[in-house]
Amino acid sequence: MEVKKIFLPESELPRQWYNILADMPTPMEPPLHPGTGQPVGPDDLAPIFPMPLIEQEVSQERWIDIPEEVLEKYLLWRPTPLYRAYGLEKYLDTPAKIYFKNEGVSPAGSHKPNTALAQAYYNKISGTKRITTETGAGQWGSALSFCCALFGLECKVYMVKVSYQQKPYRRIMMETWGANCVASPSTETKAGQQILAENPDSPGSLGIAISEAVEAAVMDDDAKYSLGSVLNHVMLHQTVNGLECQKQMAIAGDYPDVIIGCAGGGSNFAGNCLPFVRDKINGKEIDIIAVEPASCPTMTRGPFAYDFGDTVQMTPLLPMYTLGHSFVPAPIHAGGLRYHGMAPIISQLVMDGIIRAEAIPQMETFKAGITFARTEGFISAPETNHAVAMVIREAIKAKEEGKEKVILFNWSGHGLVDMAAYEAYLAGKLSDYELPADEIHRALADIEPLPKPKQYKPGTV
Amino acid sequence: MEVKKIFLPESELPRQWYNILADMPTPMEPPLHPGTGQPVGPDDLAPIFPMPLIEQEVSQERWIDIPEEVLEKYLLWRPTPLYRAYGLEKYLDTPAKIYFKNEGVSPAGSHKPNTALAQAYYNKISGTKRITTETGAGQWGSALSFCCALFGLECKVYMVKVSYQQKPYRRIMMETWGANCVASPSTETKAGQQILAENPDSPGSLGIAISEAVEAAVMDDDAKYSLGSVLNHVMLHQTVNGLECQKQMAIAGDYPDVIIGCAGGGSNFAGNCLPFVRDKINGKEIDIIAVEPASCPTMTRGPFAYDFGDTVQMTPLLPMYTLGHSFVPAPIHAGGLRYHGMAPIISQLVMDGIIRAEAIPQMETFKAGITFARTEGFISAPETNHAVAMVIREAIKAKEEGKEKVILFNWSGHGLVDMAAYEAYLAGKLSDYELPADEIHRALADIEPLPKPKQYKPGTV
Repeated sequence: MEVKKIFLPESELPRQWYNILADMPTPMEPPLHPGTGQPVGPDDLAPIFPMPLIEQEVSQERWIDIPEEVLEKYLLWRPTPLYRAYGLEKYLDTPAKIYFKNEGVSPAGSHKPNTALAQAYYNKISGTKRITTETGAGQWGSALSFCCALFGLECKVYMVKVSYQQKPYRRIMMETWGANCVASPSTETKAGQQILAENPDSPGSLGIAISEAVEAAVMDDDAKYSLGSVLNHVMLHQTVNGLECQKQMAIAGDYPDVIIGCAGGGSNFAGNCLPFVRDKINGKEIDIIAVEPASCPTMTRGPFAYDFGDTVQMTPLLPMYTLGHSFVPAPIHAGGLRYHGMAPIISQLVMDGIIRAEAIPQMETFKAGITFARTEGFISAPETNHAVAMVIREAIKAKEEGKEKVILFNWSGHGLVDMAAYEAYLAGKLSDYELPADEIHRALADIEPLPKPKQYKPGTV
Repeated sequence: MEVKKIFLPESELPRQWYNILADMPTPMEPPLHPGTGQPVGPDDLAPIFPMPLIEQEVSQERWIDIPEEVLEKYLLWRPTPLYRAYGLEKYLDTPAKIYFKNEGVSPAGSHKPNTALAQAYYNKISGTKRITTETGAGQWGSALSFCCALFGLECKVYMVKVSYQQKPYRRIMMETWGANCVASPSTETKAGQQILAENPDSPGSLGIAISEAVEAAVMDDDAKYSLGSVLNHVMLHQTVNGLECQKQMAIAGDYPDVIIGCAGGGSNFAGNCLPFVRDKINGKEIDIIAVEPASCPTMTRGPFAYDFGDTVQMTPLLPMYTLGHSFVPAPIHAGGLRYHGMAPIISQLVMDGIIRAEAIPQMETFKAGITFARTEGFISAPETNHAVAMVIREAIKAKEEGKEKVILFNWSGHGLVDMAAYEAYLAGKLSDYELPADEIHRALADIEPLPKPKQYKPGTV
C-alpha cells in the first residue's frame, strides 16, 4: 500500500518559529499611529498587547524559541498529518501529486489555535487575567476560547451580531470552553452603545466588534486584546505548520512546485508557505499562490497602500493590499475571507512578486468542496474550499501540460460547523457576486497607493 | 516533553479483523426467524445482506483478512491516535494514567466508518448498486454516506423525522457526500404510508425507519440493507480499533487495568475492547466497563432474553439484554445510546461476567464533557461523554484508593454537530430522567428471560 498520511513524531515538533522579517527582500514599511501618522512604538501598543507579543511584532530575529509550555500544549493536536490526496488525483486523472496539510485536527477544527495558544501563554505569563477579542464567523473566537481554557484565562468574545444569530454552534463551542460571547454591537461598551443609539437594529460588523474588544481591553487593567490574523506575530506563530510540512515533504521524498492556500487576513496561508518562501528567496523555484474570493479581491484588485485595519479607523495604519476600510464584502459563506485588507507580510511578498494572488468565485469553491468530500472524505470549511478550487485548476493544468507537478496546499479547517453553507449550495440557492468596479473605487477614494518597489527576482537578495 | 499521542505508522495498520466468536467462553445462541421461531439461515438473510457479510456474521474463524481496498481506504483516517490525557489527570489530581483512543478523526467524526467502509466494499463487489439504511441522530447515516461516496454506491437514508428536523447538519453532511436522506416515516414505503395513515404527525422512531429501509432493500433487486451496530459482522469490523490500540499501549509501555466505553448497540465499545477481552479470557485481569444511560439501562436493568431488534417485529429475534422492543427511551441527547437492546456478543459477555455494565444519568455525562473539553480541548459527542463520566469516576476512585491504575477509554466521536445539546446543558435546561420500574415491566411483559449460564471465571476456558 502507498503511504497516505505522513506523521511526524512528537519529538520532531519544531522548537522555534520562523520569523520572515529577518529575510524579507524588501524591508517592511512601519505601521503608523492613526492620530499622529508617525510610526507606532511599543508604548502605543502596551495598553492592548502584552510586551512579549509587542517584541515579537517587531523582532528581526530569524528563529524565535517556542516556550516549553506552548510546545507541551501544541501536542494536543500537533504535529498535524500531511496527506497525499490519491482519491482526488485519481478523480481528476492528473499526473500531479497533490499533498495537503490537515490543520482541521485541532480541537477547534482549524489552524487558528496555533497562534491562540501562543497568545494565551504570553498573556498568562504577563499577568493578564482576561483576553478580549472579536470574531466574525467564529473560527477565531472558538480557537481563543479553547486556548484560554487551557491556561485558566477568562475570555470575552464580541461576535458580529448577524453571525451570532446565524451560527449558534460556534458560539456554543466558545461557551463550552468557558468563554463569554456576546453579540456585537453590545450595550457593554461605549462603541457599542453609540452604534446602537444610531441604529438599534445594526447587524454588526468586524470593524465594530474590533472597536468593542479593544475598548474593553483598554478600560480594564486586567485585560488585554488579541487579534487572530494580519499582524506579524500571528504570522510568526503560524509558521509551526510550514516548518512541520517541510520535514514531512522531505519524508515523502518530494518538494512542492506549487503551494496554495486561501487568504483572508493571511494567517493560515502564511503559516504554511513562509518557510518555503525562505527557500524561494534562497533560489528555489516555487509557484506560491494566495487564493481570495472574487467578491473580496484584496490582492488582485486593490492597491498596496496605508489603510486602517478596521472600519472605524481606530487601529494603526498598516502597509497592505486593501479594498478600503469602508469596503463591505458581499455576504459569501467564507466569512473568514471577508476582510478588506491583508497581512502586511503577505502584501509585501505579493508586491515583490514572490507570492501571486488569484481570485475565485464562490460557486467554483463549493463545487470543489463537494468533489473533495466525495474523493478524500473530509468536508472542508468554505474558506478552505478556495484553496481546493485552485488546486483543482492547477491539477487540470498539469494534466493539459502533461507535467508531473507536486502541489501542496494547506487544508486550513473542516466545515462541520458550516453545513448551512453546503445546504444552500446543494439546494441551488447560492450564486456568484459580481463586484462592480465603482464599488471598489468608492471605498478607495481617500487612499493613496504606496510607490511600487522594484520587482523582486528570486536569488537576488 | 512527555509523549502525548501515540501514532502507529500506516504499515502497522492491522491486516485482519478479530472475530471473538472463535473465543467466546459460552457458545452464542442463534438468532431466530421472527415467523417460524427457527434459527435463521443464510437464505433468510440473502434478500437484505450481501453473502460475504452473511458469512462473516456466522464465521468461527478467529482472524478474517481485511481486503486490500478496505485497508487502502482505512488510511484516510486510520490508524487513529492514542492519547494520554495529562490535562484531565492533572485536573483530577489522580494517580491513574488515563489513555483515550481518538476515533473522532474520521471524516464522519466517529468510529462508525470502520464498518461502513467494509460494508460498502462487500456490497460493491457483490454487485449492489444502492444501500438503504436508517439513522437516528445521524452518526451512522453520515458514516455510510461517506463510505458509499468512496465506492461510487448510491445511499438512501431513512432518518427519524424528529432528528431530521432537529439535526439538519447531519442530514446536510449526508447530502454533501451524495446520499439521499428522507424523513421517516416517508411516503416512499408501504410501512411509512401505513404509519402516516394512522398518524400523519408521527415523529418517527428507529423501529419505523428500520422497517422502511429493509422494505426498500427487499423491493429493489439492486439494493441491500445495512445496519450500523448490534450484529456480529459490525462488531468484527470495529475490532480494527482495539487491535491498533493493543499495539499503541505496548508502545506506551502500559497495559490497561480498566477499559471503558459507552454502549448503545455496542459497536464502538466492542471495537475497542474485544481484542482485550481475548486477553482477559486468556488470563489477564482487566475490569471492562460498558456504560449506558440511566434512562435506557438495557444491561443494568433488562433481562437477557430473545427479543426483536426493532419495534415493529420484522427483524430476527436476537439473544440479548433488552428493555423490550416496545420500550421508548427518554429523549436524552445521546441519541446513539437510545436503543432497547444490545449486541448479542456484548450481551453474552456481560452475562458471562467478563464485561460489567454501569448506568450513568445524563447530567453527570455533560458535566464530564465540559471538564474534558476544558482540560483536553476536544468536545465529545454526548454518547462519548458517558465514557468520560465513567473514567472520571474511576480516576477519583483510584485517587481515594491511592492506586496507580491504567485506564483506557474509547473516545468514540466529537460533538461538533451536537452543540445544541451542550447549549441546553449550559443554559440549565437539561435534567436527569427518572425511569419508573413499571415502565420497564410493561415493555417486558411478553418477554421470557433466557436461562442464566454458569458464571464464567477468567482462565477457565
